[in-house]
Amino acid sequence: MAKNDLKVYPILEKIRQVKPLIHHLTNWVTIYDCAAVVKALGGSPVMAHANEEVAEMAGMAQALVLNIGTLTKDFVEAMKIAGKSANAKGIPVIFDACGAGATRLRDEKCVELLREIDIGIIKGNVSEIARVAGINVRTKGVDTAEIKGDIYALAARLSVKYKCTVAVTGKEDVISGAGRTFVVKNGHALMADVVGTGCMAASVIGTFAAVGPDLVRAAAAGLSCFGIAGECAAVNSAGPAEFKVKLIDALYNLDKKTVERRQKIERV
Amino acid sequence: MAKNDLKVYPILEKIRQVKPLIHHLTNWVTIYDCAAVVKALGGSPVMAHANEEVAEMAGMAQALVLNIGTLTKDFVEAMKIAGKSANAKGIPVIFDACGAGATRLRDEKCVELLREIDIGIIKGNVSEIARVAGINVRTKGVDTAEIKGDIYALAARLSVKYKCTVAVTGKEDVISGAGRTFVVKNGHALMADVVGTGCMAASVIGTFAAVGPDLVRAAAAGLSCFGIAGECAAVNSAGPAEFKVKLIDALYNLDKKTVERRQKIERV
Amino acid sequence: MAKNDLKVYPILEKIRQVKPLIHHLTNWVTIYDCAAVVKALGGSPVMAHANEEVAEMAGMAQALVLNIGTLTKDFVEAMKIAGKSANAKGIPVIFDACGAGATRLRDEKCVELLREIDIGIIKGNVSEIARVAGINVRTKGVDTAEIKGDIYALAARLSVKYKCTVAVTGKEDVISGAGRTFVVKNGHALMADVVGTGCMAASVIGTFAAVGPDLVRAAAAGLSCFGIAGECAAVNSAGPAEFKVKLIDALYNLDKKTVERRQKIERV
Repeated sequence: MAKNDLKVYPILEKIRQVKPLIHHLTNWVTIYDCAAVVKALGGSPVMAHANEEVAEMAGMAQALVLNIGTLTKDFVEAMKIAGKSANAKGIPVIFDACGAGATRLRDEKCVELLREIDIGIIKGNVSEIARVAGINVRTKGVDTAEIKGDIYALAARLSVKYKCTVAVTGKEDVISGAGRTFVVKNGHALMADVVGTGCMAASVIGTFAAVGPDLVRAAAAGLSCFGIAGECAAVNSAGPAEFKVKLIDALYNLDKKTVERRQKIERV
Repeated sequence: MAKNDLKVYPILEKIRQVKPLIHHLTNWVTIYDCAAVVKALGGSPVMAHANEEVAEMAGMAQALVLNIGTLTKDFVEAMKIAGKSANAKGIPVIFDACGAGATRLRDEKCVELLREIDIGIIKGNVSEIARVAGINVRTKGVDTAEIKGDIYALAARLSVKYKCTVAVTGKEDVISGAGRTFVVKNGHALMADVVGTGCMAASVIGTFAAVGPDLVRAAAAGLSCFGIAGECAAVNSAGPAEFKVKLIDALYNLDKKTVERRQKIERV
Repeated sequence: MAKNDLKVYPILEKIRQVKPLIHHLTNWVTIYDCAAVVKALGGSPVMAHANEEVAEMAGMAQALVLNIGTLTKDFVEAMKIAGKSANAKGIPVIFDACGAGATRLRDEKCVELLREIDIGIIKGNVSEIARVAGINVRTKGVDTAEIKGDIYALAARLSVKYKCTVAVTGKEDVISGAGRTFVVKNGHALMADVVGTGCMAASVIGTFAAVGPDLVRAAAAGLSCFGIAGECAAVNSAGPAEFKVKLIDALYNLDKKTVERRQKIERV
């Protein structure tokens, strides 16, 4: 493995200076938490989904996050309008393939969104990403450790197919794009026990992508920061609910020393 | 009163082993908390409401929870599709009659859902359940203590009418079905001061029903566990918000000793 | 500045006695927190947005809160139906101009709502209120301190234009109506770092307006209480997430002594 050449903290500092506006069309379950992590990082979240205003809102933003967790046909149409506006302005579009593979509707809409919008970063867990890549995996029973080599190849292949960055979240996060692959080894087991950490990860990536040097490094840096916050939050947390409160506050309080000491990103 | 013959902890253990998928069509206010309690118990929550996917999603699930808290006509149509799919698969449907009696729309839609879907468990507070049973009660001014005897009769009658289990939540929870009635005496006064504990109770019942021995005992066991978690959470809580955080973490941490020592279920 | 003649605590006491029902049509991001603050104060929140039931629900309520944070055309139509019902019944309508100025749709819908409904209280931050008043301000870069004098004039002017009370939230809150202007100097800097405090403020104002002596004093008293809770919550909060938990619990626990000692309302 090559030595990591990615500095995370300067990107976080830039977020706090620039306060980028991150426009979301996301699901109704974790919508608050998506907004909360953007704000905790120093960004400015906005959620808006009316067909009549999404193009204008995306046009004001520095990144657009699309999440299909509670999709409907109409909602996906609004995503397309917002996505095309983001593309026209040249801001990054982050696509959270939340629940891909669960139903035909989700699979169809993933394909449509990836065909009609220029997605900058596709984010998902290993089974969601595999499904978007056209592989027929079962969601349960996929062991991240065992198919480690495959995840690298999977991410790289999907990245080439859609000319984008692919972020596969899990015990280790794998980020692939522009011929490079990073592995992020930050995080804590409790993150998997909280509803919404996947969605929050996409919002964190969006906030980093809004100011970052390039999408691959922005996604890796964002996931590292999120994982570091998880490590800090796990200390003395009684369970997932207290942990989530501490996770958001840890993002808010991340300082240079903590980030530099804990950052675990490897280029593979 | 007869001695209780219901063991709660083995059902909780089974949830943690099986990790049942609980599909929700629920309201937009407490949707996160409904997901959070399912996950804290060890289940896997999914929220999906698009007409085009609800049948498929319900078909993958081990229980379906319907909550009309922020209903619209279209949303109720999606509930019917999901409900019929759940019926076809033979998984339990839990119906939270949230706000029944408040408006004509709610009353009409309750009737439609109960007519068109085979509901396994109807859950509500005493005034909601009375309204579903066709009694004209005022929501405010219903004193649980005074009409104690009536609640037993009410639950039993509604249970016979719809051939289902009826769970009436309150200071004491009354669960009636298949000719049996249980009273659960767990819980804490702070639960009534938190927005969403009623909705969360339906999700807890759904998670227990997904693996439980039968719907009556699953509902009683679920409400007992939820009440026990409330008792644990109340210790040192400054108010309803801290209490809710601790409530979810208490569900996550429930162990055999705590459940067996605190369980207060009586068969009447 | 004139001496303050406004007693806050008796209004809070009345909320706890009367338990007013506060009907909301609000955004999907902070909907839970809006309900939570109403409940913490002692009121009873209800969220309902189906065209078929909003008139009936508003007709049962003691105040109606409208918030356009995640508006759609259909949702605004439901707001109009609810608003007209509230007007017919004579209960106060609170309008949170959330995100006014961000898109043409928001500007248009603000105008329509203010034209078709008799709004009792318009609430917003300085740029939202300026936009509703027809001034072309940029949302970012508006420094509350520098245009202090202008905020008083702005609030007074908008109040006259729509014959209503105007509440401008910020480091200092300015409330103007019926020829009077109050300034509330309670609050804490952390409130600006939490997603949803603006929306929660509108719900607090609605709860006070439901029982208050008049809309101007109700809005000022509500914002003072909310600010006092913020001051209490800030003690030992690690960040915005812990702060929000403590904020809701502080509202729940507000006592006479704390309110009377901390209340900072000036009539200008």
